[in-house]
Formats: sequence, structure tokens, C-alpha cells
Amino acid sequence: RTDRERLWQALMEMAKLGATPKGGVNRQAFTDLDRQSRDLFIDWCRAEGCTIRIDAIGNIFARREGQEPDSPSVMTGSHLDSQPTGGKFDGVYGVLAGLEVIRTLNQHDIRTRAPIEVVAWSNEEGCRFAPCMMGSGAFTGQLGLEDMLARTNEENISAGEALEAIGYRGTDRVTPDHIKAFLECHIEQGPILEDTGNTVGVVVGALGQKWFDLTLTGLEAHAGPTPMSLRRDAMLGAAEVTQAVNRIANAYQPHGRGTVGVVNLHPGSRNVIPGQVKMTIDLRHFDSETLTLMAEELHQVIKETSQHHELEFELTPSADFSPEHFADSCVSSVRRAAETLGCSHMDIVSGAGHDAIFMGRVTQAGMIFVPCENGISHNEIENAEASDLNDGCNVLLHAMLEQAGL
Amino acid sequence: RTDRERLWQALMEMAKLGATPKGGVNRQAFTDLDRQSRDLFIDWCRAEGCTIRIDAIGNIFARREGQEPDSPSVMTGSHLDSQPTGGKFDGVYGVLAGLEVIRTLNQHDIRTRAPIEVVAWSNEEGCRFAPCMMGSGAFTGQLGLEDMLARTNEENISAGEALEAIGYRGTDRVTPDHIKAFLECHIEQGPILEDTGNTVGVVVGALGQKWFDLTLTGLEAHAGPTPMSLRRDAMLGAAEVTQAVNRIANAYQPHGRGTVGVVNLHPGSRNVIPGQVKMTIDLRHFDSETLTLMAEELHQVIKETSQHHELEFELTPSADFSPEHFADSCVSSVRRAAETLGCSHMDIVSGAGHDAIFMGRVTQAGMIFVPCENGISHNEIENAEASDLNDGCNVLLHAMLEQAGL
Ligand SMILES: NC(=O)NCCC(=O)O
Ligand SMILES: NC(=O)NCCC(=O)O
Repeated sequence: RTDRERLWQALMEMAKLGATPKGGVNRQAFTDLDRQSRDLFIDWCRAEGCTIRIDAIGNIFARREGQEPDSPSVMTGSHLDSQPTGGKFDGVYGVLAGLEVIRTLNQHDIRTRAPIEVVAWSNEEGCRFAPCMMGSGAFTGQLGLEDMLARTNEENISAGEALEAIGYRGTDRVTPDHIKAFLECHIEQGPILEDTGNTVGVVVGALGQKWFDLTLTGLEAHAGPTPMSLRRDAMLGAAEVTQAVNRIANAYQPHGRGTVGVVNLHPGSRNVIPGQVKMTIDLRHFDSETLTLMAEELHQVIKETSQHHELEFELTPSADFSPEHFADSCVSSVRRAAETLGCSHMDIVSGAGHDAIFMGRVTQAGMIFVPCENGISHNEIENAEASDLNDGCNVLLHAMLEQAGL
Repeated sequence: RTDRERLWQALMEMAKLGATPKGGVNRQAFTDLDRQSRDLFIDWCRAEGCTIRIDAIGNIFARREGQEPDSPSVMTGSHLDSQPTGGKFDGVYGVLAGLEVIRTLNQHDIRTRAPIEVVAWSNEEGCRFAPCMMGSGAFTGQLGLEDMLARTNEENISAGEALEAIGYRGTDRVTPDHIKAFLECHIEQGPILEDTGNTVGVVVGALGQKWFDLTLTGLEAHAGPTPMSLRRDAMLGAAEVTQAVNRIANAYQPHGRGTVGVVNLHPGSRNVIPGQVKMTIDLRHFDSETLTLMAEELHQVIKETSQHHELEFELTPSADFSPEHFADSCVSSVRRAAETLGCSHMDIVSGAGHDAIFMGRVTQAGMIFVPCENGISHNEIENAEASDLNDGCNVLLHAMLEQAGL
């Protein structure tokens, strides 16, 4: 059994780095605070006898040798970086749950057959340097390493330079070839476990995502002298599209999601009819064909709306991730561990992208969710219970033991 | 008859001050370019023998004495300031049409009984210093003089300081007491005259305006893991309100107008459900009771929408102008002049606010509209025909002669 207090203390110690007045954390990727959290993680791992490797994108791999050093390792981990107004648990929980597994194995002197590795993936949040999941993306070849290192932030500093500056542009060659399975603990970032009273989410996969940029162009005109019948109001089009996104997502439940998160009006003046609106659309579903269908329906609605309001439109895909179904072996290990430990649990689909999803494309992968208060994440008020976090960590320990063998 | 070429030349000469690459004008209130346009206007008026007075808010009054100097004057004018991306005609046409009237009277040596005055009102656009119609508002007591002088721009400079800096914080005491009538020429800023093939709009009044700021507050949450049924999406509320504004305005035609010109989302991120939307609503109608009814319907819709999407709302009025019905005497003078001159004309209601509306509260007032290309204004591509502009100016001349007497 993992140690609830020890896990909680580690989380609270890490949360001091970049702590914000409102109780959250601002520890963005490749900043000095990111460096401090990496240093601390490495210190803790070395104290447990782990060997450390750092690859070219700054991913940190801490390895606890197995009885069979040549056998593929069982890996866990998540990320240490946060959103600018992030919480104390998103990402860091998955890293420190991995550390807690190693501490528990050491404490009880348990030797696994396969090596155990804990990874801290670089820049999962993607706020300072886009895109998100940069470290696991580059590691798994889903994103190009050179491309990622060349990405610049608003100050025109490249990810490679920033990584170099904090001393984490590593030289170890680590490949996904010798990994038997990857498991990741994470807070749910949604309200379902809390709503259903479950402690552990057995993550069976993740929703696919299709993101779009939409520009609607009408005619900017004076709000007073322009009769209603002679308007080409881009905001009316945007309102219809927003409602359609909601309608389409609702039509494909329980897994449909549709969100309009950005809406920018031009010129954005009280008494001017908006001549142009630029907006974003985020569609998600667990079924690949349904997701395609949702995107087609969206396209159709945009065509009709544009025609109706005499608007021109430009619809551009900005991201496209297919749904991920995790390997049965990993999902079963997690479910069995939850049962063995008597944790209330349910199968759940991840609505968000995670490093484990990229890992699922190169090896067997799975995830363990624990509830977060009111389902709130990417927010300084993000909160989770010590006992839930420890339950998830215990499930991770047992699932990893099953995968690694004794 | 006024001189089409002379009027056009004056307009084109003035348009050089603050000319923009796209053929428009950027000559915002109380800038050095505003000073240059004022200097030029005064030079031209002095050359016609006018006396000049400048009041505390920078309004410029150019007076051509009448045969009966003590009789109340007949006044015309508009504004020289422009939007940041404004056109060559909005405002400046009304000022230079007044100058053209004086030039024509001088040319033909016509003496009117009542004095004639041409005014250039300060800061009609209100872009650098809010609110709009500052000069006529302060002159007519609709806006407080001290309050207006204290208004600051984004650089924290006060209107009073800016006026002082360009040398136009005047000391002449000019009051609305001795004005018989006020007439203003202006481009329509809408498409109705062009659409109906008329050259002159006999403005019978102006729509009342009710402006609102609306804040809708829901709950910011992650777009992936948050099921549709557990969302409190402020943007869905904003979309419904936008459509309701349109529906309400359409229900009260021909005079109803409803516009959502500003919509700001928080946090404004692709994969975050908007937790808050701040938006503006501009409702207009010619009938005061109908306008009140429209505002009530809006309020009701916002209540229902907020309840439906579990949002909180805050609705704050930000402007409230009652409809203006111009004095019969002025409207008749304009209509008769158009008939006498054989201009195709129609009665029209101004959708926009104008200095003449404030003047209508302290004396008899009227307006003359001429078409602008595609109804477009507040835009560098704003355009108008020399012959239409001259027709409107001729109507002004004849209407003023009727008011001033020979
Ligand atoms: N876990 C997470 O916040 N991922 C970001 C990408 C997404 O929107 O799913
Ligand atoms: N004429 C004009 O643009 N006035 C501004 C105020 C309004 O929106 O009516």
C-alpha cells in the first residue's frame, strides 16, 4: 500500500514552486520554476536509487532497475508544468504518484521482474510554447523533434533555447522501443466521478478531437441608420453557429462535446454592426465516424447560416486527433487493481488529451482518474482529496506490479 | 444656387488634413490635425467677413450679420472631427455646406433679415474622448461642461487639457438663447436614400436609443471532460441574447433596430467553456413607448436565457436618448426647399445621433440627408456624389433663407 501522507507531502512541497496567492500554481514549461521542480523531482528519485536520463526535448526518465534488466520497462508519469493560473494537481499528481510507487517498493524491498520507470514529460500544457503534449509527442514521433525545438513563444525565444537555458536540453537517447506498458494517474478534470460518487476512473480511452478556426465576413455598418433587412451581421451568423455546435454535440451523447471558446468581433464597437467574426470550434467524440459526421454537420450548418445572412466563411481545421482506445491489458490491470483494493470505480472516457494518448500509439497504455472538486481544473481553485489521490496511486502500484511481474 | 465645384473643392481641401492611405480621414477630436482643420475653417470664414467666437468646449461659431442684428440667428453646421478610420464627408460636409451657403449669399450680395451662423461642434465622434456629441451636448446643457472637460482618454489626458493644447479652449460665452432654428446637412450613413433612388432626405426626427452592458456569468470549465449536460456556458447565453436582440428589432419595423456590437469572452481559450461573456446591446426605435417595450422584452429574454443555462446576469443601461421629433417649421422648410429645387426627396428618420438632435431640445431643429455610397460610413471607403452633396447644400440654402427672411 502507498503512503497517503507521504504522497500528499510531496504534492504540497512541489506546489510551493510557483505558488500563486489564490492557492494555485504558475509553473509554466521551460521557466526557472519548471527547472526547480525538475531538480527537486530528480533529487527525490536519486535518493530512491534511481538512475536518471534526460532526452533532447527535456523529458526526464527515472529508472528503478528490475530483476531482468533487459526486459521492457513498465513506465508511468505525467507532467510537472502548469497553466499560468493552474492548480496543484494537474500533471504533477501523475509524476509524484509514480515516485510514491517507487518509494513504496523500496520501503517494502520489493523487486519487480521488469524495470519501473517514472517520466516527467516536458511541456504538456503548451501555454508558453505550443502545441501541448510536446514532450510525449516528440518522444513518440507524433510531433517532430526539430520542429518542436524551433517553436517560439511571444518573446521570440525558441523552446530549444528555453530548455538550454534551464539546463534540461538532454543528450540521452531514449526511445519508445523497450516499453511494455505506460500507465498515467491524473485528476479527471471533469465532474463525472464526483457526480457518480466513484473514487477511481478506469480510463478506457480518450475522445477524438477536431478543432476549427472559422471566419465569418459580412459588412461593417452603422447600427443606427442600417435597417434590419439590409444587414450582413457576422455576429448573427456566429450566434447561430454557436447554437449549432451545442445542438450537434447534444445529438451524439454520451460522448459528444462541442465548444465555442473564442469569439472575436471586428470592429467591436457598440454602435457598429460586426463586419467580421473570428471564432474557434472544438468538437469531440469517442467514435471516429461519429466525429467525422459531427464535423460534416457543422460544415453544412455554416454553409446554410452564411447563405442566410449573406456572409462569406472560411473554415480551417486547426487540430485533428483520432479517438484513442487503450489496450485491454492495461485497462484490465487498472480495473482489477481497483477491485482488489475495494475502490469504488467506473469505466470512463477521457475528454481531454493526455501524454498517455500519444504513448498509446507506440505501446500499451492506460490511465487512472481520480475526482477533482466540482470537476474544476486549469484553475487556481483546482482541488482534490488526499485519500482519493492515494487510492488512485494504490491502483497504479498494483496495476504496475501486475504488468511488471514479481 | 450654391456652387457644386466650390463645395467639392472645399471638401477635398479639408480631406487632406489627416488623409489616410485608403482614401479616408483620421482627424480625431482635439488632435493637431483637428486644430489644422479648425484653423482652415476659420480662415475661410474670416475671408467671407464672418466674426468668430469660440466657447469653453471649443465649439466655433462663425457669424454673418443680418439686417436685424438683434433678431435670433439661423444656425447650421456639424463637426470637423472624424473616426480613426473615418471618411471624407461624415460631419465635415455639414460644416462646409454652411460655409458654402455664406459664400453663395456673399457672391450674390444677399442680405438676410436674421443673422446666419455656421458652427463646427467639438468632438462629435467621441472616439478619443467619450461621449459623442460632446460640443453640442455641453452647449445645450444636455451634458455638463465641467464633466466633459474632465473626461480623460487612454493616455489619461483630459479633454480640457487637449483642447488647451491645440489652442481651442475658448472664452466666448455663447448660449442657445438667441437661435431661431438649427439646420444640419449630413450624409445619411445608411442605405435608404440610395435604395429608393432619392437625392434628399427630409429628416423628420431621430430614433431613440437605449444602450446596455450585459455580463453573463456561468462556469469556466474544460471543453473535453465536461459533459454537455453539466455545463454553464456563458457563450450559449450570449448567442441566444444576440438572436433575441435581432428578433425584437425585427418585430417592430420599420423603425426597430437591434445590434450586438461587442462580445468579449473570458477566458477566451479554444478548449475552455467560456465562464463569462461581456457584451453590449444597442436598441433603437422612433416611438418612445415601443422602445421601452423592446427593452422590457430584452430584459425578459435575458432572464429566461440565464435561468435556462444557469447563468447569472447583470444588465446595466449605458445610454438612453429619447426619440426626437423635429419641429414642423424646420421640416417644412426643408421639404419645401427640396420641392422648389426639384430634388427627388423623401421623409426619413435618422437612425444615428447627431448634433441637431441636442439642438432640437433648445430650439427648432431639422436635418437634410444626402445619400452615401452603399450606405457606408465610419469607414475610409465612405463616398458621396458631388451633385448630391450640392443638392443637399442648395436645400439648406433655401430652407435657411426661408427661416432667416429676406
Ligand atoms: N489534459 C489537458 O488539459 N489537455 C489539453 C488538451 C485538451 O483540450 O484536451
Ligand atoms: N452620427 C453618428 O455616427 N452618431 C454616433 C452615435 C450613434 O450611434 O447614433
